[in-house]
Amino acid sequence: MIQGLLLKLRLTSLLIGGSAALLFSLQTQALPGDYLVKGAPAKEDFALVGAAAQADIYIDSNDYPGLQRAVKSLQQDIQNVSGRLLKSGSNFSSNSKSSTLLIIGSLGKSALLDQLVSTGKLDVSAIAGRWEAYQIQLLQNPLPGVEQALVIAGSDKRGAIFGVYDVAETIGVSPWHWWADVPVAKSPSLYIKADTFITDAPKVKYRGIFLNDEHPALSNWVAEKFGSYNHQFYQQVFELLLRLKANFLWPAMWNNAFADDDPKNMLLADEMGIVMSNSHHEPMMRADKEWNRYGKGPWEYSSNRDHIYKFWQDGAKRHQHLESIFTLGMRGQEDEPMSEGENIGLLEQIVADQRQILKDTFNDRPVSDVPQVWALYKEVQGFYERGMRVPDDVTLLWADDNFGNIRRLPTKDERARQGGAGVYYHFDYVGNPREYRWINTVPLAKIWEQMDLAWRFQADRIWIVNVGDLKPMEFPTDFFLRMAWDPTGFNADNLQQFASNWAAQQFGAPLKPEHANTIARLLQGYSHHNGRRKPEAVEPDTYSIFHYGEAERVSAELAEFIQASDALEPVLAEKQRDAYVQLVSHPLKASRAMFEHNRAVAMNRLHGEQGRASTNYWAAQVKFWFDEDARLTDLYHKLGNGRWNHMMSQPHLGYTYWRNPDANLMPVVAVATPQPVADMGVMAEGSALSWPISEYQGKHLRLLPFYPQGQRERQLEIFNKGTTPFEFKATASKPWITLSQQSGSVSEQQTIAVSIDWDKAEAGENVGEVDVQGTGWGGAKINVTAHKTAARTGSGFVDADGYIALDAASGKMLANNSKRWWQQVPGLGRGEAAMVAMTELDYQVGITAPDIQQSAALEYPLLLNQAGTFTLNAIISPTLDLVPGRGLRFAVAINDEPPQLVDTLKDHNYQVWEQAVLNGVRTVQIPLHFKQPGAHKLRIYLVDPALVLQKLILDTGGLQPSYLGPPQSPYLNADIGSTE
Amino acid sequence: MIQGLLLKLRLTSLLIGGSAALLFSLQTQALPGDYLVKGAPAKEDFALVGAAAQADIYIDSNDYPGLQRAVKSLQQDIQNVSGRLLKSGSNFSSNSKSSTLLIIGSLGKSALLDQLVSTGKLDVSAIAGRWEAYQIQLLQNPLPGVEQALVIAGSDKRGAIFGVYDVAETIGVSPWHWWADVPVAKSPSLYIKADTFITDAPKVKYRGIFLNDEHPALSNWVAEKFGSYNHQFYQQVFELLLRLKANFLWPAMWNNAFADDDPKNMLLADEMGIVMSNSHHEPMMRADKEWNRYGKGPWEYSSNRDHIYKFWQDGAKRHQHLESIFTLGMRGQEDEPMSEGENIGLLEQIVADQRQILKDTFNDRPVSDVPQVWALYKEVQGFYERGMRVPDDVTLLWADDNFGNIRRLPTKDERARQGGAGVYYHFDYVGNPREYRWINTVPLAKIWEQMDLAWRFQADRIWIVNVGDLKPMEFPTDFFLRMAWDPTGFNADNLQQFASNWAAQQFGAPLKPEHANTIARLLQGYSHHNGRRKPEAVEPDTYSIFHYGEAERVSAELAEFIQASDALEPVLAEKQRDAYVQLVSHPLKASRAMFEHNRAVAMNRLHGEQGRASTNYWAAQVKFWFDEDARLTDLYHKLGNGRWNHMMSQPHLGYTYWRNPDANLMPVVAVATPQPVADMGVMAEGSALSWPISEYQGKHLRLLPFYPQGQRERQLEIFNKGTTPFEFKATASKPWITLSQQSGSVSEQQTIAVSIDWDKAEAGENVGEVDVQGTGWGGAKINVTAHKTAARTGSGFVDADGYIALDAASGKMLANNSKRWWQQVPGLGRGEAAMVAMTELDYQVGITAPDIQQSAALEYPLLLNQAGTFTLNAIISPTLDLVPGRGLRFAVAINDEPPQLVDTLKDHNYQVWEQAVLNGVRTVQIPLHFKQPGAHKLRIYLVDPALVLQKLILDTGGLQPSYLGPPQSPYLNADIGSTE
Repeated sequence: MIQGLLLKLRLTSLLIGGSAALLFSLQTQALPGDYLVKGAPAKEDFALVGAAAQADIYIDSNDYPGLQRAVKSLQQDIQNVSGRLLKSGSNFSSNSKSSTLLIIGSLGKSALLDQLVSTGKLDVSAIAGRWEAYQIQLLQNPLPGVEQALVIAGSDKRGAIFGVYDVAETIGVSPWHWWADVPVAKSPSLYIKADTFITDAPKVKYRGIFLNDEHPALSNWVAEKFGSYNHQFYQQVFELLLRLKANFLWPAMWNNAFADDDPKNMLLADEMGIVMSNSHHEPMMRADKEWNRYGKGPWEYSSNRDHIYKFWQDGAKRHQHLESIFTLGMRGQEDEPMSEGENIGLLEQIVADQRQILKDTFNDRPVSDVPQVWALYKEVQGFYERGMRVPDDVTLLWADDNFGNIRRLPTKDERARQGGAGVYYHFDYVGNPREYRWINTVPLAKIWEQMDLAWRFQADRIWIVNVGDLKPMEFPTDFFLRMAWDPTGFNADNLQQFASNWAAQQFGAPLKPEHANTIARLLQGYSHHNGRRKPEAVEPDTYSIFHYGEAERVSAELAEFIQASDALEPVLAEKQRDAYVQLVSHPLKASRAMFEHNRAVAMNRLHGEQGRASTNYWAAQVKFWFDEDARLTDLYHKLGNGRWNHMMSQPHLGYTYWRNPDANLMPVVAVATPQPVADMGVMAEGSALSWPISEYQGKHLRLLPFYPQGQRERQLEIFNKGTTPFEFKATASKPWITLSQQSGSVSEQQTIAVSIDWDKAEAGENVGEVDVQGTGWGGAKINVTAHKTAARTGSGFVDADGYIALDAASGKMLANNSKRWWQQVPGLGRGEAAMVAMTELDYQVGITAPDIQQSAALEYPLLLNQAGTFTLNAIISPTLDLVPGRGLRFAVAINDEPPQLVDTLKDHNYQVWEQAVLNGVRTVQIPLHFKQPGAHKLRIYLVDPALVLQKLILDTGGLQPSYLGPPQSPYLNADIGSTE
Repeated sequence: MIQGLLLKLRLTSLLIGGSAALLFSLQTQALPGDYLVKGAPAKEDFALVGAAAQADIYIDSNDYPGLQRAVKSLQQDIQNVSGRLLKSGSNFSSNSKSSTLLIIGSLGKSALLDQLVSTGKLDVSAIAGRWEAYQIQLLQNPLPGVEQALVIAGSDKRGAIFGVYDVAETIGVSPWHWWADVPVAKSPSLYIKADTFITDAPKVKYRGIFLNDEHPALSNWVAEKFGSYNHQFYQQVFELLLRLKANFLWPAMWNNAFADDDPKNMLLADEMGIVMSNSHHEPMMRADKEWNRYGKGPWEYSSNRDHIYKFWQDGAKRHQHLESIFTLGMRGQEDEPMSEGENIGLLEQIVADQRQILKDTFNDRPVSDVPQVWALYKEVQGFYERGMRVPDDVTLLWADDNFGNIRRLPTKDERARQGGAGVYYHFDYVGNPREYRWINTVPLAKIWEQMDLAWRFQADRIWIVNVGDLKPMEFPTDFFLRMAWDPTGFNADNLQQFASNWAAQQFGAPLKPEHANTIARLLQGYSHHNGRRKPEAVEPDTYSIFHYGEAERVSAELAEFIQASDALEPVLAEKQRDAYVQLVSHPLKASRAMFEHNRAVAMNRLHGEQGRASTNYWAAQVKFWFDEDARLTDLYHKLGNGRWNHMMSQPHLGYTYWRNPDANLMPVVAVATPQPVADMGVMAEGSALSWPISEYQGKHLRLLPFYPQGQRERQLEIFNKGTTPFEFKATASKPWITLSQQSGSVSEQQTIAVSIDWDKAEAGENVGEVDVQGTGWGGAKINVTAHKTAARTGSGFVDADGYIALDAASGKMLANNSKRWWQQVPGLGRGEAAMVAMTELDYQVGITAPDIQQSAALEYPLLLNQAGTFTLNAIISPTLDLVPGRGLRFAVAINDEPPQLVDTLKDHNYQVWEQAVLNGVRTVQIPLHFKQPGAHKLRIYLVDPALVLQKLILDTGGLQPSYLGPPQSPYLNADIGSTE
């Protein structure tokens, strides 16, 4: 909900330029309105529920039944919050007993409202004639005998309904009250500020969700609670949408047919104000499954036109008097491409026939007044790109790549189309390379970054998001729909604030602001973690157990979240617990359990491969986290006496291909049978190799080289393969090698930290070894090398351990201006923030070298050990070249050298795309030649919008494999000898 | 024991030429002599023990005490066999009561013998003055009152002793009676044929064994049975050697010092007739461990000459009156190279000093009369090659590479040296790349092939073999020492006969000849199996579980042996059982258990990787065979109330580097936790890959291509990952694809055999697929290709499945002559036989093309599908270029094209050697260009001796990895359309 008039304008002009971010750091998308009096009311404030008195509700009996429903809902909400039931009536007379009134109505449907307008008591010019606008205003002495009236006026039916739910939310009823057991904020009195005057209206015309991939979780739950996908179920969905000020729904479709499963479904939707459609591949308001039930012949237009035509005619007729958007075109059944292949001629014929049906059915109006959409999903976008067109009034629904990366946005010409454009987005997906259905995996920053583009490119007719089973997606769904209401209220810098506000709304009292911030951190934290890689796609070896302490680092990060969450739980009121589990602790703990399960598998494999006695500890850990996952699911299912039973039943452990296994599968584990002997093994950090080692295989243990500013310690692990403890002795061959211990006893494992005494090392390369004697012949010899680099001048991120790693956001922004600028987006990408290339709409950076050198740049100072040609790994988000005629390019330059243009999609194909969406990043490798060692400036120039730079890793010869890459390299001011 | 005069000549002249083999197919190395009457004696036969009478034994009281001992031993043996104790005396008078005498004596030490010679009753010219010769002759009326006398006359002490033990063996006492519980062949009477006249003498002067690497097995057994390595223990070793007609011993040395542990050791050896030395790295009759006990200062001659000199002086003095061979030179302690490195000057000084000590000690004779040896072991050979020399009278002891491949044999010049040459060979080894100490791994054919070379190159002064703990090496030790007695008695074609004879000797009655043949097959079988790869070096993936049914084939081979062995056991007499376990069934069953253990690990890993429910079956198999191994060891240790306790305690399971683990280690296994769901997986033969599969990894299931003469069936395995059975349906996309079943139910696993209906396939490449539907999305699609090759003319081994595999022995031998010829050796190498390049001593095949084309060749007819350049994999034994100035070369040609000279050691280095000895073969790859498809002759020309060709595999594009390579390709006579 956005406050007041100030922000009603379309503020694109403010979105440009380097200072735009700052301007929007306000709490513009704050959730509950601030017209509710907190603390003691002033004399002039309006007592909706006062200490003694309370307002009566007025709503015209002629007003929309949907509004009547909403008002009843508000009445109930007020009672829930305050314990008091307001009287409601549709006959106003000056003899009314209450001197305070809550007047609710739609313009032109409410006699009293019209009277207030005509008497000049109410000015509705700000909303009149607008789509879904509403006004909430406190009037003094508006009517005879009425001291105060709070008016909720809608420009139309939904405008009024949204006004009603705005009040409901404001007095403390979360939209998620029913769907996530969020308790209302009890308050015996409710006062509205005397100066309340709010008007608001949506920026995006149709805002909705798609219930999809709904088996087994949602479907089994629905079957248990409602019997079927009937209107009792859908009533809850509709109300949730309305409370989130959404108006649009693609209904559940995998094994369901909305209009056919329960004929009341479509009637109730229409009554309550929900505009229905069917999913992108179900044309003419007919569900895919209806064809199975009633269709004759094959679903092939070329061979079975007549039957299909009739099928569609029936659909149009059925919805003749219902508010709908007709999906045009055709795909195969069950969301597959048409069997006829890419037959554009046929598809054009299909659309023409569909138009004819609409013309015939809606003969009271021009067909262009019948809302129609053509979903450019998957292969259908290809038809468009190859020249197929639909009439100008049809909305073009662009789609993401199923992984949240919008494939295409309207060009200038397309933006002039009467039908405009929309976007179909995904929080849930079934298909290659791997489905993600289990839990929320999409960070707000990712949604914002992409939908902000959609908004700026004026794809503002429809925003629809696939929410899967709905339930685990509460947080991003809320965000998506609020952003759809007003994209201008959201910016890179207020996403964290949104999360805090949302946390505060769901868990207001007794939480303090810092608690809300903590919950926000946890919400962002777990979705950021899942955003690094969909949990279903995480393999045991995804996070490196060998390099950069990666798996341990992620483990610690998640453990810290759990700790913070556990510390919060006692603060929560008992009645908040269920909501907390659903919205915060379950997704967090389940995400952690899955991560630790996978890490345990990796450790089990490693220890198994090395024959360690501790193999079984890790086997037990694998089982522990598998069981913990089941326990968490069970706990969720038992909340509120099974209120959400089945809702977390989506299998998520044991994927081997895109589709889920039939149940969560416990992986095969390695099991050791340690013998009653002492049997030493030695492992050097960075490799699975362990001593004793078959020298004939040419293998030797070694630690990765040390550098003065590099990793300070590297570990040797001395372990036992048997059950009898043994003594070991470790000796360094050179005085510059420091060992954390030189002897000890090993039952299962001992770790020796190896580090370097740089004062004792010579300049250049130092070679030595550590000798570990325990059991076995000869003892382990581990090579140690230390590169004592030459003294440097200047400052910069320093070359150590064979690489320089840079967080994109560490770059200095150069030459940002209002036409193109780098925007830092916290929470975007795998790290703390990413840098997004932004341009004014349709502005294009030139691609000659001088053009590029004029463009906005990110500059990173480097300190190199040596000259040479090194590979720069640019880690970017897997966004797409959504601006026709442009690529997804940037340029890179060393110092003032001519920039090198980098086309990040040069080698793009389906396989590359699959890897990119699985990894959540695309890695582009650029060879860079540095003419001399020492200080350099690395510059990344902005070329195309939608490029999202996350990280840069210059491989100077020692970069090791890992998932996230090494943490940022230290910044060295060599002139003063300090390292940050 | 070799019969009679015929074979006493050095018969090298008979060893040449293609017909040599045939000539030696006689039972020349038959074990027990055939002068014992079997069945009813003739009137004139000699009643050693007759029905009524028995012979008296005569031995001169002045004769050697060692011979007196041997005679007592024979007296005991006769009693054991016949139940009758012969009287023994040293005073012969014509009043002697017995009219039959057994006269035993050494020439010059026996008055009676000398009398017989001087009276012309006995002609000893065949043995007089010879080394260790003996004569066994039956004399009629040799002395007054003596009707018959059996004379055992020795040319010297050991000659007489060997004669005595020849009789002992002949009457039915196996040399292994004590050492392997071989029962004597009971017989109430013993008659010697009337015409008995045997003379024999050894061909190799010193023939012995080295007890080495004796901990834990032998040492713990010795500790338990004898307390220490004292003379009671050694008496048994000495007697075994004498019964095997050996005369030489390197005593146990790892933690023992022969002369110091028990001073009676050396005295007893000398008395019994065993020539002592110390192992190759223990100079001057002093044990390595004596230096630890008595040495002062470091074992470094450069810095501690005086103490070491004195130490050696004491050694020489101690052995001044004992028969010894002095080892010269010096190595580091514990069989390591000298710490001084390759200091030839120092080593020459050492040898000079050692000679001086010998001169000073043995001042009664020229120093050249003191037996001395210089062992050219490991790096020491390098000193020699770089020019270091020792005096001409010192024997040069050449060595193998520790894996049974002799590194070097004497050149013509070296053969002229006064000291001559010998060979140090290994049945047991501790060191890189992997030790082998547990069980017998050396097939007779391998020993014969190498030691025959030694013999032919006149390395005939010393043959010594490292037998480790002695005990598991009974069979090859027996063979080695008998061959050392007379190498001319052994040839490529009578090795199997030796094994049968040996089996008959150990398990004579009640076994029938066919039983002996079976035992021989088992002995050869398990050692052939172990010869393919030392058990300690077998990894789970050594034998392919994917290609050519390899692991299953080996498994079946071993199972068949076990079956044959089990069938034999009831035939054995109770008293034979212990010997049978030790000599036959334990090594066989233990070898099998280890193989199956490893195979189970491989299967467990595969099924684990594929997540199969059956993973646990294989995990249980791993444990079963691990336990079975322990059970077999335990059974061995409990034989005869623990008579051989500890003897099989060498750890052998769980190697990760060259050295054994501290105990047998149970490997880490994969353990599944199948869920109560139905979850299909599908595997296509030839790859671990299984469906469901992540297509984004670009992986697809496929069967290897079919060819008309190739593998007839390839398998699909449909398996369950869960515990609920499911139905499957398999469909072939093309009519030429035949499936053994098209539907079924899968609890754990179902196999579908895919084959080709060639009549329905088109000429050329046919592509189709098999679709398997069960659980999961979409079903598995498995690519099937079939190459219907064009019709051929001619005949040959046919190109199918992308290769032609040829057993070397399938070649037609061309142009063999007496100077160079190919010799087929059954049992040599991994297959049934190998082809050995043989040359007359010092003969050299020229290496110009015309020379080579004149040389002996092996010719293989091929039928190729296509022209092209293909790699020929020549699988040869890892023999070495033991003839200085020559390599280890052969030449290869297609048809009459010029031959291509192949240097099989071109890229030889330490790593290549390690791989070769582990694999038991060296693979040489040669690119061959075939100008057209169809019939060709592949010729392998003989160039250098000691090359052993085992197999040829021409990779025409489809050769798959395996250990043994594919079985031989079928031979196709395309003209008549038949395949063999």
